[in-house]
Amino acid sequence: MSSLQSWEEKAAQKRASLYNLIPQGWRLPETILKNPPKNSTLVPSQCGILSKLDLEITEIDDIEELAHRIANGKYTAVQVTEAYCKRASIAHQLVNCLAEILFTQALERAHYLDDYFKSTGGKTIGPLHGIPISFKDQFNIKGIETAMGYVGYLGDISEYNSFIVDIVLSLGAVLYVKTTVPQTLMKGEAGSYLLGITLNSLNREFSSGGSSGGEGSLIAMKGSICGLGTDIGGSIRFPSAVNGIYGLKPSDGRIPYGRAKTSLDGQESVPSVVGPMTRSLSNICLFLKSILEKKPWLIDPKVHNIPWREDLFQEGQMDKLCFGVIQFDQEVHLSPPVQRAINMAINALEKAGHQVIEWDTTDHPQAIEMLMKFFQADGGKDVQKAVDLSGEPLISGAFIGSPETEISVYENWQLNIARTNYAIKYLERWNQTKEITSTGRPIDGIISPIFALPAYPHDYRTSGGYTGIANLLQLSSVILPVTRVDLQLDQITDEYRNMKIASEFDKIARETYKSPQMFENCVIGLQVMCRRLEEEKAIGMAMVLEKALKLYQ
Amino acid sequence: MSSLQSWEEKAAQKRASLYNLIPQGWRLPETILKNPPKNSTLVPSQCGILSKLDLEITEIDDIEELAHRIANGKYTAVQVTEAYCKRASIAHQLVNCLAEILFTQALERAHYLDDYFKSTGGKTIGPLHGIPISFKDQFNIKGIETAMGYVGYLGDISEYNSFIVDIVLSLGAVLYVKTTVPQTLMKGEAGSYLLGITLNSLNREFSSGGSSGGEGSLIAMKGSICGLGTDIGGSIRFPSAVNGIYGLKPSDGRIPYGRAKTSLDGQESVPSVVGPMTRSLSNICLFLKSILEKKPWLIDPKVHNIPWREDLFQEGQMDKLCFGVIQFDQEVHLSPPVQRAINMAINALEKAGHQVIEWDTTDHPQAIEMLMKFFQADGGKDVQKAVDLSGEPLISGAFIGSPETEISVYENWQLNIARTNYAIKYLERWNQTKEITSTGRPIDGIISPIFALPAYPHDYRTSGGYTGIANLLQLSSVILPVTRVDLQLDQITDEYRNMKIASEFDKIARETYKSPQMFENCVIGLQVMCRRLEEEKAIGMAMVLEKALKLYQ
Repeated sequence: MSSLQSWEEKAAQKRASLYNLIPQGWRLPETILKNPPKNSTLVPSQCGILSKLDLEITEIDDIEELAHRIANGKYTAVQVTEAYCKRASIAHQLVNCLAEILFTQALERAHYLDDYFKSTGGKTIGPLHGIPISFKDQFNIKGIETAMGYVGYLGDISEYNSFIVDIVLSLGAVLYVKTTVPQTLMKGEAGSYLLGITLNSLNREFSSGGSSGGEGSLIAMKGSICGLGTDIGGSIRFPSAVNGIYGLKPSDGRIPYGRAKTSLDGQESVPSVVGPMTRSLSNICLFLKSILEKKPWLIDPKVHNIPWREDLFQEGQMDKLCFGVIQFDQEVHLSPPVQRAINMAINALEKAGHQVIEWDTTDHPQAIEMLMKFFQADGGKDVQKAVDLSGEPLISGAFIGSPETEISVYENWQLNIARTNYAIKYLERWNQTKEITSTGRPIDGIISPIFALPAYPHDYRTSGGYTGIANLLQLSSVILPVTRVDLQLDQITDEYRNMKIASEFDKIARETYKSPQMFENCVIGLQVMCRRLEEEKAIGMAMVLEKALKLYQ
Repeated sequence: MSSLQSWEEKAAQKRASLYNLIPQGWRLPETILKNPPKNSTLVPSQCGILSKLDLEITEIDDIEELAHRIANGKYTAVQVTEAYCKRASIAHQLVNCLAEILFTQALERAHYLDDYFKSTGGKTIGPLHGIPISFKDQFNIKGIETAMGYVGYLGDISEYNSFIVDIVLSLGAVLYVKTTVPQTLMKGEAGSYLLGITLNSLNREFSSGGSSGGEGSLIAMKGSICGLGTDIGGSIRFPSAVNGIYGLKPSDGRIPYGRAKTSLDGQESVPSVVGPMTRSLSNICLFLKSILEKKPWLIDPKVHNIPWREDLFQEGQMDKLCFGVIQFDQEVHLSPPVQRAINMAINALEKAGHQVIEWDTTDHPQAIEMLMKFFQADGGKDVQKAVDLSGEPLISGAFIGSPETEISVYENWQLNIARTNYAIKYLERWNQTKEITSTGRPIDGIISPIFALPAYPHDYRTSGGYTGIANLLQLSSVILPVTRVDLQLDQITDEYRNMKIASEFDKIARETYKSPQMFENCVIGLQVMCRRLEEEKAIGMAMVLEKALKLYQ
């Protein structure tokens, strides 16, 4: 690639080369491309590109079930891989979710796995044998670019795999795509000058969410059964919520981040974390368990020596739990469908015999303010260096610093102290709930929205008021879809119309929620947050919530 | 206290008020004070201040045994507390190791414990019922000053207990003294304009080591059975080594640091850690177990949810272990007694059936260089603010920054990345030893000196070449005494004399080791380092080493 090319030319070339990696037979007809339905998830089964077998395979949401069928010889790894390569191709053409296409390598790998299976008389490499796993374009795959949304990173060929890539390979997985991110990574959608905008799978009027937006849309399109995202302010949870899928934002030190790229790299006051985004809670469970069985702390110095804890998982599924609930982050009032989702969760849990009490968020804006200061502490140098490589402009609306926001190391230390003091008080408040719960214990976890709206348009300025607290305090969080926007039930009420505007973000959100019709087909996801390093409990509690919702409906 | 007083007056007043808290009957006669023996540890049993019972009590090294005798009614908590208050008083008069004296409160507490014991028909509050525990003067005790070696912090009365203080209280312990630290905390001795210099308990020609030097000397004097120190570059291990006692420098996140004061507070690239200093390995074991049983992660947001792991403890005591051994940190050659201690460890372990292989330290100076950059990243602002409060001068030789060493937040981020990459490579090298051990596993841990000399004089510039690696990488480390300086065996050899000077630190060390006579009675301690968060294994391996040494001798 000539260095005399403009960044626009380089970006265009990358997009074209990506598109060219989609075989002719997998390309959508012009009729669909020119007039795609709002809801892209309808296309795969109707477009005629996927065979009956492809559809059967990709409609299986459960990793264990799919792995079981491969291990039993019902499907070959090649069949599964091809089905997912096809479906990911369809997804990309509709929502622009792929950053790298590795179909050739994927099929080679699948052949290897099938050969292994045959030659060993039916043995598998591990619990993910033959399962395609997608990766956000921060993870390094040897021999492949990791552009991470920057034109300037094109040509940056990885010399090694990220640790998590090595681990999923050791579990038997197949690598086949990397997915889109926003330039800077610090924005709630996946849009870059390099690859353009990723659309919401459920309603193309909206953004995919982000920063792990490519994963969100791809997985909702069933172009992936499970992918790896990252979260520093909500980047796994926003795209999981707005695409109606599941995700885990673990605490720092559970899932290896080593040898992956990131933005604001080296910023450790609020560490970014890696987590799975997927199509069921049991997948999250299986994935985390499988990763931990590989003892990642032996290779990644930042991972804690904490195995899967079955007792904590069971603790999350006790007969009588007490959930805190957040209904307002002090910044943005919940739109009718999100409020309804929260009400459903409360009612379902109470009906199932659990207790739900309000969780006070008076001090949350303080947390978000600290978060922003940490992100902006370098004065934007990290991001500026990255865009300067190509001369591309900086995207707007990212949570990054500017020369005015730069602070000194000493000031950063003071901010760290403030954050620790805040965390101590928060924990104290958490423990004090013991006095008001009926379980004799403090609250077991907190249910919270991800955002005030079910989805948001491109270039929307999301606030992190509902998500950021889990990053500042490194709480474990599991997100799950709860309900779909209802054209009758989610009409704007007088109450919603007349609530006092709480902030600039609130004003924007209230102006955006014009009617349920506008959000047709959108899904509302909620998160269950537990204490730091209580991932197993958060998964268990999310399962309790999901079960309660099923019985309630 | 008038603010018109000079810092010298304030410091003198503090020292006097401290001395006045020692009852008349516990004061050493002038004959001893004017001509104290080199080895202060000889005084307590000879000075006549301790009763037979006081001696019996304070000579018990084992916490469990002492607690057992209290729980059985053989001793009262008051008897034990008084014995320790007396012996700590004697220690202070000889080696100047106390920063706060809380005898009145201690006896009140002991009476409370005895009353509890009587009124419940023989119940104890916990495993430390009636056991006096000492604290480095960084830990807050409600109502007491935490001056931390700064004149300017005088009058700074704590409004709460540090978490670890609350926890030992909940275990039944008695608070009775706080111990000296160096001004800045960033020096390998305990010396301040506020309280003067703390002397080595074994040989008053030498420093107590530091920064947890007050603990080191007090515990070796048997004026404490167990105390809490902190370590950011060797501050638990230096004073443990040069006073011949035991210590645990855990990884970050095992023992709560919350609500304690520290220097360079908010610096998180290389976190300081809290650990016990004590008189046996079984005490370390009991202490860590007891702390973890209280689930400190529920109150301190920085503690990981990791209980005591008996399996890891057993893993450290397997029949066949492989130890790496460090014999040179690339900076300072080992003096004859320290080299002999290392040789003893190697021979004893091999005789006991374990394997010992050399551990390459070629890359260690790089680690120490990074460590220093982290400590100095604020340009010395933190420490400057503290000394400016009173106008006292800054002590010399502390590892702190100056305006020239200040770096930007962005540069600190790059340094964090460099540290993480270093940690990844180190772990890779650790794992690769699997190929050369005879156990089929990588090395289980590393034996290393703490320093090249058995002790060092006041104002000696210690390098952190043997200790700092465990801080940069947050390795777990247990220190234990191995042997005493031998006047015959530790003569200067031609080999030692003729070795090439490796660094400025080496030159100083070689000039300091003039003869074994000079280091008479000094003890050599070694550390056993395990991976990050493998404290239980490090304790187990230290026990294996101690047992092997006993059999070997």
